[in-house]
Amino acid sequence: MSKKYKFLVLNGPNLNLLGIREKSIYGDFTLDDLIEKIYSNFDNRLDLVNFQSNSESDLIDRIHESYKSIDFIVINPAAYTHTSIAIRDALMAVSIPFIEVHISNIHKREAFRHNSYLSDIAVGVICGFGTDGYVYAVESGINYLKNLEKR
Amino acid sequence: MSKKYKFLVLNGPNLNLLGIREKSIYGDFTLDDLIEKIYSNFDNRLDLVNFQSNSESDLIDRIHESYKSIDFIVINPAAYTHTSIAIRDALMAVSIPFIEVHISNIHKREAFRHNSYLSDIAVGVICGFGTDGYVYAVESGINYLKNLEKR
Amino acid sequence: MSKKYKFLVLNGPNLNLLGIREKSIYGDFTLDDLIEKIYSNFDNRLDLVNFQSNSESDLIDRIHESYKSIDFIVINPAAYTHTSIAIRDALMAVSIPFIEVHISNIHKREAFRHNSYLSDIAVGVICGFGTDGYVYAVESGINYLKNLEKR
Amino acid sequence: MSKKYKFLVLNGPNLNLLGIREKSIYGDFTLDDLIEKIYSNFDNRLDLVNFQSNSESDLIDRIHESYKSIDFIVINPAAYTHTSIAIRDALMAVSIPFIEVHISNIHKREAFRHNSYLSDIAVGVICGFGTDGYVYAVESGINYLKNLEKR
Amino acid sequence: MSKKYKFLVLNGPNLNLLGIREKSIYGDFTLDDLIEKIYSNFDNRLDLVNFQSNSESDLIDRIHESYKSIDFIVINPAAYTHTSIAIRDALMAVSIPFIEVHISNIHKREAFRHNSYLSDIAVGVICGFGTDGYVYAVESGINYLKNLEKR
Amino acid sequence: MSKKYKFLVLNGPNLNLLGIREKSIYGDFTLDDLIEKIYSNFDNRLDLVNFQSNSESDLIDRIHESYKSIDFIVINPAAYTHTSIAIRDALMAVSIPFIEVHISNIHKREAFRHNSYLSDIAVGVICGFGTDGYVYAVESGINYLKNLEKR
Amino acid sequence: MSKKYKFLVLNGPNLNLLGIREKSIYGDFTLDDLIEKIYSNFDNRLDLVNFQSNSESDLIDRIHESYKSIDFIVINPAAYTHTSIAIRDALMAVSIPFIEVHISNIHKREAFRHNSYLSDIAVGVICGFGTDGYVYAVESGINYLKNLEKR
Amino acid sequence: MSKKYKFLVLNGPNLNLLGIREKSIYGDFTLDDLIEKIYSNFDNRLDLVNFQSNSESDLIDRIHESYKSIDFIVINPAAYTHTSIAIRDALMAVSIPFIEVHISNIHKREAFRHNSYLSDIAVGVICGFGTDGYVYAVESGINYLKNLEKR
Amino acid sequence: MSKKYKFLVLNGPNLNLLGIREKSIYGDFTLDDLIEKIYSNFDNRLDLVNFQSNSESDLIDRIHESYKSIDFIVINPAAYTHTSIAIRDALMAVSIPFIEVHISNIHKREAFRHNSYLSDIAVGVICGFGTDGYVYAVESGINYLKNLEKR
Amino acid sequence: MSKKYKFLVLNGPNLNLLGIREKSIYGDFTLDDLIEKIYSNFDNRLDLVNFQSNSESDLIDRIHESYKSIDFIVINPAAYTHTSIAIRDALMAVSIPFIEVHISNIHKREAFRHNSYLSDIAVGVICGFGTDGYVYAVESGINYLKNLEKR
Amino acid sequence: MSKKYKFLVLNGPNLNLLGIREKSIYGDFTLDDLIEKIYSNFDNRLDLVNFQSNSESDLIDRIHESYKSIDFIVINPAAYTHTSIAIRDALMAVSIPFIEVHISNIHKREAFRHNSYLSDIAVGVICGFGTDGYVYAVESGINYLKNLEKR
Amino acid sequence: MSKKYKFLVLNGPNLNLLGIREKSIYGDFTLDDLIEKIYSNFDNRLDLVNFQSNSESDLIDRIHESYKSIDFIVINPAAYTHTSIAIRDALMAVSIPFIEVHISNIHKREAFRHNSYLSDIAVGVICGFGTDGYVYAVESGINYLKNLEKR
Repeated sequence: MSKKYKFLVLNGPNLNLLGIREKSIYGDFTLDDLIEKIYSNFDNRLDLVNFQSNSESDLIDRIHESYKSIDFIVINPAAYTHTSIAIRDALMAVSIPFIEVHISNIHKREAFRHNSYLSDIAVGVICGFGTDGYVYAVESGINYLKNLEKR
Repeated sequence: MSKKYKFLVLNGPNLNLLGIREKSIYGDFTLDDLIEKIYSNFDNRLDLVNFQSNSESDLIDRIHESYKSIDFIVINPAAYTHTSIAIRDALMAVSIPFIEVHISNIHKREAFRHNSYLSDIAVGVICGFGTDGYVYAVESGINYLKNLEKR
Repeated sequence: MSKKYKFLVLNGPNLNLLGIREKSIYGDFTLDDLIEKIYSNFDNRLDLVNFQSNSESDLIDRIHESYKSIDFIVINPAAYTHTSIAIRDALMAVSIPFIEVHISNIHKREAFRHNSYLSDIAVGVICGFGTDGYVYAVESGINYLKNLEKR
Repeated sequence: MSKKYKFLVLNGPNLNLLGIREKSIYGDFTLDDLIEKIYSNFDNRLDLVNFQSNSESDLIDRIHESYKSIDFIVINPAAYTHTSIAIRDALMAVSIPFIEVHISNIHKREAFRHNSYLSDIAVGVICGFGTDGYVYAVESGINYLKNLEKR
Repeated sequence: MSKKYKFLVLNGPNLNLLGIREKSIYGDFTLDDLIEKIYSNFDNRLDLVNFQSNSESDLIDRIHESYKSIDFIVINPAAYTHTSIAIRDALMAVSIPFIEVHISNIHKREAFRHNSYLSDIAVGVICGFGTDGYVYAVESGINYLKNLEKR
Repeated sequence: MSKKYKFLVLNGPNLNLLGIREKSIYGDFTLDDLIEKIYSNFDNRLDLVNFQSNSESDLIDRIHESYKSIDFIVINPAAYTHTSIAIRDALMAVSIPFIEVHISNIHKREAFRHNSYLSDIAVGVICGFGTDGYVYAVESGINYLKNLEKR
Repeated sequence: MSKKYKFLVLNGPNLNLLGIREKSIYGDFTLDDLIEKIYSNFDNRLDLVNFQSNSESDLIDRIHESYKSIDFIVINPAAYTHTSIAIRDALMAVSIPFIEVHISNIHKREAFRHNSYLSDIAVGVICGFGTDGYVYAVESGINYLKNLEKR
Repeated sequence: MSKKYKFLVLNGPNLNLLGIREKSIYGDFTLDDLIEKIYSNFDNRLDLVNFQSNSESDLIDRIHESYKSIDFIVINPAAYTHTSIAIRDALMAVSIPFIEVHISNIHKREAFRHNSYLSDIAVGVICGFGTDGYVYAVESGINYLKNLEKR
Repeated sequence: MSKKYKFLVLNGPNLNLLGIREKSIYGDFTLDDLIEKIYSNFDNRLDLVNFQSNSESDLIDRIHESYKSIDFIVINPAAYTHTSIAIRDALMAVSIPFIEVHISNIHKREAFRHNSYLSDIAVGVICGFGTDGYVYAVESGINYLKNLEKR
Repeated sequence: MSKKYKFLVLNGPNLNLLGIREKSIYGDFTLDDLIEKIYSNFDNRLDLVNFQSNSESDLIDRIHESYKSIDFIVINPAAYTHTSIAIRDALMAVSIPFIEVHISNIHKREAFRHNSYLSDIAVGVICGFGTDGYVYAVESGINYLKNLEKR
Repeated sequence: MSKKYKFLVLNGPNLNLLGIREKSIYGDFTLDDLIEKIYSNFDNRLDLVNFQSNSESDLIDRIHESYKSIDFIVINPAAYTHTSIAIRDALMAVSIPFIEVHISNIHKREAFRHNSYLSDIAVGVICGFGTDGYVYAVESGINYLKNLEKR
Repeated sequence: MSKKYKFLVLNGPNLNLLGIREKSIYGDFTLDDLIEKIYSNFDNRLDLVNFQSNSESDLIDRIHESYKSIDFIVINPAAYTHTSIAIRDALMAVSIPFIEVHISNIHKREAFRHNSYLSDIAVGVICGFGTDGYVYAVESGINYLKNLEKR
């Protein structure tokens, strides 16, 4: 494959604590490890940018910057999944296809986590697959883009 | 008219993309054009300040700064219309009369856009009038302030 | 502008009392004054027809008569906003673009006034702008029709 | 068959526009054509009266007049299906059996059209059969009345 | 008592059938008998006007006409109790105190009859007292007006 | 009238404070005055027993004691209207017809006062008629019993 | 008419008991009689296949088999109307137009029978017309197919 | 890897039509192709059993048979996702970990597809990844089982 | 007692696993043991037929077969309690009195298990009594039938 | 059996009327007869205390007194089932296992009787078994206590 | 401070068991200890009356007696928080300011404990502070009364 | 007391305006005064850090920084109480015990302020106690920590 797709991996609030807090539950796999893991899986096949923020507006700004420069977004919106219409609007505005990822299975959790402002405009949704979910999302994104080209 | 009213035009998240994305739908009328349009309609009649941010807190801060220095606010809260009680509280705290503007008709859109945390404390609400809505809101704000003076 | 657009200004139930009852609150600005005000703002630019009725069916009949003879409708459906699917059907049947106007801000009122059977099929909605709302609606309607011609 | 049953075909708001507006969708089959169609199907077998009105009260009055003079009612209440308890009360008051007809399939439409104030007191309900629905309703009404006589 | 209060007794849709239909249940006491009954109870003490209509707008018009000429309204809105915001608005517009009467006990009936658009702005509500409810409402209205005078 | 009907007037929680607290609003008309008022209206025509209690079970007990000894109950259940299924069951168990009375118009009050566990099994309901409501309820109860006898 | 349309008449759970149980209510008209009745009405005009099952999956299988071999389906899904998304999916998968039939008027019955998983994707719905509903559905299906051909 | 895990791939109603109907949308990738695809991805690493049925009970039976013989289940319950508590109970009874797969993104579809009776007891959920979702689910299942062994 | 009543004990989905799975919780009491237990309690007093199926339609078929041959049904519908209107219809169709049994206390479980499509047409409901619930249900059914005979 | 378990049979509001009112429906089986019936079934096997009260607080007090002196409670909370969180709290406080009994099938009754504040903390619930329900509850309670001892 | 405020500490149902039951959770701190604790904190500063009852009406009676003799009420309504409108009415009737106290954090508990009939008319609400909540409530009540005096 | 606990006092959006706006209502007690007040109450007993921000993410960041360095948090989340799941997640992630404080009684305010995303994971909640609420929260936090040590 000659062309390299440009991917943005976006992580929302509190994900900076991954692997740092509650290690007994989540292990000591950090956000840096996660990015490293994705890189190692797709090293020659894609340009990867990653960004984490606890700030709704910083996430929006980063999505805006991706306009015409990013081919696909893999987003774990964390708590903003359930409360941010503004991130939804940003994703719709830039018209970049994206997949929604959750590390744990949100269906096992509180009722207010069962609503997502992003799922119905996403290409797909994956949850409960741990950090592998990101890898599958990137791989699926590549296939999605390849299929687009074929048409 | 001798006295000049001070107006703040506030634009919420994703409105910085106006006229930049999706030109086929919205045209190429930008946020700067919008401000210019308002100025040109009221050039000698009011002091106009404008502010756009994707950040809920920056919008709140800007509302706070308006306390005792701004006479009327024209706000297009965009997605925060439906999710931000904090902006509502800020507007109530500074006690500045305001009008809520939406460029498109939000009643045609998703059900979650039918609730507004601002409408019931606004002077008025206008939607679906395109960018003219801002002009009407400013004009109406001037009339509102004149009527206050008469009392 | 050479061509004169034909506008219908429709007022629903109890609006015949405008300026007659509760003058301390609403002032003594009557429905006739309102029509006069619109005329004076657009004297040479449009043919204006106005109609007020407390009867749902008379309003429907008037909408039917407008079929192919009226270019734009400015409607204040008053209480029928929240209860009349028949007026909605009439407006859809004649396919005439319209704007929904409310003199006061209905969002400050009872919960049953928060639902409108017309808003989602209107070009736009304006409330809380007093009788100026009609003027803005007419002006916006003219722009709407001009834009249609340009296409 | 010697005895002629007396039928009332009632059509509610906006049905006077049938075949006049939106011909591309509904064709140019008018309300008169509809009545003609029913007549031609049952020419010697029943006395047929028809009435259309956009007025809720005129429909109620016509139902009242039918008391003891009409054997069966075929009603297309259109928008009043979903909003008129008064028509329901009128039908219950005169105790005339009736069938509810809708030309299009209302289940494909807005959620507020899924409630009917008449269905649970009707003999039957038919929708989506086009104007044939009226013919079937009349035929079924005749059978209904014949069965009553047999008892 | 020297001064004669002016009362309007308003009856809504289908009440013209009182005593005519379903005599086995409601008896043969007609609307005329009802008015006669009220007259005979208060012959020298009040001016009584009565009006019945199946038309929402006629009821509204009659309420409008009462502005400044009627002291108290006794209204049985029948089915419009549950569907007419327009009648509510008319009663609020003319600011005439009123009592809501229902002949039967509406709480025994369908769930959609449990909501009233008038009860919360009425002086009082009475149901299930048969036609005596009107007499009590008038008597109570007289007391209400006397108490107003005392203040 | 030779036969004397036996009536029980039941008053629920907090009604012992009538005329004692908040005199500026409710006046100084006490519960004793209320009973006296009813007596004076019907002195020769009925046996009247009255009972007030803040206790749900005392009210139930009093209803039980009425079995076969009381002809009609006039009950103002106050707050228990909205919370006591046990009082409903007691009234159903003894099968004594009753009217539900509220001194003020409960429809003007909090939403949780709009539900009544008694209304649908009552003969009638009256509210907002002040203490006259009791008198009308008794009078209506007498008529109710007389009609029963006629059958 | 030269071409014969192929119709499938599908009957859902418990309809095998038609005419066998509760004869006093439903009469002794059996499912076989029903099929015979349809045949006799359309003897030369259509190929008719019928199938009844209490099994959701058998019904699904039968719908699958109809793919490309059946022109129109008349289905009485009985209880599965309200619970089977799988039958909905089967009907959507084979893309065969269909009409939903209910022998009795389901709107007179329990609230859980007011929801249908099929109505919004059906051509039409008929209920309360007894077994005639099937005949009308077939006739209407023929017209539907003829109209398709004309286009 | 020496030990071979035993996987069951379960497909629910209408999935037998995969690649057969609506090829323009879903392509001509059949259920057999899907199973082949999974095999080819994991040829030496697992024992794979697959089963498709339109019958709720056959799916239940197959789950029961898996008790103590299957290590992990990958299930696409299709329409039964939203209606079958019995399949949920079966999965809980055999205590076999499972992942829920949907080929398309169910969040883009009807509201009644947003509820799942399985998600909260699944290891994870994946939708909108096309048939790749099965492959990821199997891979993730292998990791899940390996992690269990490590403990 | 000379006459032997005929009882059908019906067990729904997943109950075939009783005593086989999760022995630590439910013990090793199997479905066969359960039937044996009932037999031993009523050996000479009734004809007992038992049937278990995971299939909704098999359960329906078995209920149909019971028409006129079974006197009383004891049913544990398991998951179908909450989802099967078809079983409800079958039970209503054959008009055989029945008692609904649940081994565990379903009120301790998920909210979706709190609705039953059978309870309101059952003679009685028992849950949380373990397998004794069946014995009590049979005993109560015998009493029920004896009482019927006495009338 | 050597040890005698101590049982409390608690009956809530209006159950003192059992067998006294409405004999044609409930028969003349009184509360005393009920207690007698239980005694006679378990004469040598348990110490039985019974208590009936119409008072919520008396029932609470009686539950408190049972602390450490009663082994099992059989409670028919009647109307308090649906309204008393205080009785729930009392039962939780004393930590005595209990079974909830209803003589009639409450699922056949008003919707507000479908909620119970006790069911989810009860050992089991039985309704519609008449007074036998108490006997089964006691017997089941004995088994429950025996099983506890075995552990 | 010279003047002594009069405080009433009211404790609702089941609080008499404080420190007696479930000592492992709540410790052995009794209601007497609680009162003693409050006394010792405010010995010279206030007259303290305390009252506990499991009876709704006794609590109401005690509130009534406080009319004009108590300055402030600290109430832990326990289960009656969520069910007693009568206690709300009593508190409103005597117009004594009060604070609502809960020992544990009720937000951690069942959903039906999230509604309070008292909170919106209380001065404040405190929960989860253990028995210290009473002390803070009294101290805050003193401040409240002092502030009243200052005005 | 030798050891000093480390407390973080967090104030959310708009609380920077405390004592600045609306002095007539809230007085001129500022946020600085509040912190000073807390200090003066606990001068030698604790290390106090305070932070106010209108930014959701700044509040989250501050909570993250507290991980392992702060013993207890006193938080007034203001408007974010009702909208921020991200702050909830932050508090859960760092596992620091906290108390939720509101200066005014939020139960007297709009319905959307009755939901809190923090209350169910807080140690306690206090509202309507003015700025004293913070002092009580700190005091209670100290006790909470002391009790932890004792265990």
